[in-house]
Amino acid sequence: MKLHGYFRSSASYRVRIALNLKGLHAEHLAHHLRKGEQRDPVYLAINPQGLVPALEDDAGMILTQSLAIIEWLDETHPEPPLLPKEPSRRAKVRAFADVLACDTHPLQNLKVLARLRELGLPEDKVTAWAGSFNREGLAACEKLIANEPGPFCFGDKPTIADLCLVPQLANARRFGVDVAAYPRLLKAEAAAKQNKAFADAAPDQQPDAE
Amino acid sequence: MKLHGYFRSSASYRVRIALNLKGLHAEHLAHHLRKGEQRDPVYLAINPQGLVPALEDDAGMILTQSLAIIEWLDETHPEPPLLPKEPSRRAKVRAFADVLACDTHPLQNLKVLARLRELGLPEDKVTAWAGSFNREGLAACEKLIANEPGPFCFGDKPTIADLCLVPQLANARRFGVDVAAYPRLLKAEAAAKQNKAFADAAPDQQPDAE
Repeated sequence: MKLHGYFRSSASYRVRIALNLKGLHAEHLAHHLRKGEQRDPVYLAINPQGLVPALEDDAGMILTQSLAIIEWLDETHPEPPLLPKEPSRRAKVRAFADVLACDTHPLQNLKVLARLRELGLPEDKVTAWAGSFNREGLAACEKLIANEPGPFCFGDKPTIADLCLVPQLANARRFGVDVAAYPRLLKAEAAAKQNKAFADAAPDQQPDAE
Repeated sequence: MKLHGYFRSSASYRVRIALNLKGLHAEHLAHHLRKGEQRDPVYLAINPQGLVPALEDDAGMILTQSLAIIEWLDETHPEPPLLPKEPSRRAKVRAFADVLACDTHPLQNLKVLARLRELGLPEDKVTAWAGSFNREGLAACEKLIANEPGPFCFGDKPTIADLCLVPQLANARRFGVDVAAYPRLLKAEAAAKQNKAFADAAPDQQPDAE
């Protein structure tokens, strides 16, 4: 398999963790987002959305969108599972992941912040925008798992929720968010950081890290 | 069941279609987003994110996030299925849905457009922002299903992809996007509009419609 990604892309980071948890190897193909390599026509033929990640299997089948890729990995390589078995628990895990993947990350990614700058917004307001959406998303997530004993977001093993949380906390810190406000999320992150699958997927461990 | 929603919320619209396709009845509880009713403390206790939809089952269990709710409905009420059986086809459907649910809709919802206005952006630039993200998302979706015979997005029956597409096309038109640029998407929409489950879920058919 080949994973088209970028060391600092949170969506790529989620998929890297999933691949590591499943014990799967993928060749990492880096597309430098700040240099616009994701808009190269060769890459657009792979993913018309011009975003990373995209996963190519050995038969050339291409999958896009991090959560769709992760659900596919979980369906085709069931061990260890990344979702609980019980439907309402699965829905809770997916909802937590979607708070970050739908309502948080897309509002503070490189593309959107660039658009705000094009509109003439000064850098402090761009950072404030990114910080505020991180705070809102993380605050909602903190409440969603307030009564979950953990140590991971949902139980004693990582799920898709943790795969989304760890990269998002890294983003939040980059935008100056005081993450101490989210102790339950930090507990889950601490559990994840002890897991080699998460540690090896970290941005600074990637070959294209700067 | 009870569905907390708002007639014009695309995410609520997706869940309404899913409930109708499954033949399930839910009491519709309207929260007027423009009046800020979703930030009422009573509602925040139901959904700490302060967004619609939220689905409450008869035992009082609360689910949030439209796609997580729809996957739960599909797992607990399997007929008719809203996802194909084959994993790579499921991944394609989910990726299409995520282009709209993660990278399009959250960038042009009420909350984000209000934030742009607070930053002093004039109305024409706010509308241009919303239009451009709609165009980008729909253009990517058009390419994702260019080789799918249809008439729905993926095959001859509606999937989660169609549940996301129909509300998004309605949004795009509201922001002045020329949707004639997406003939394959319009073909899927035309098929959906002939289906009573979709027609009955339309915003103007809801009790809180204005």
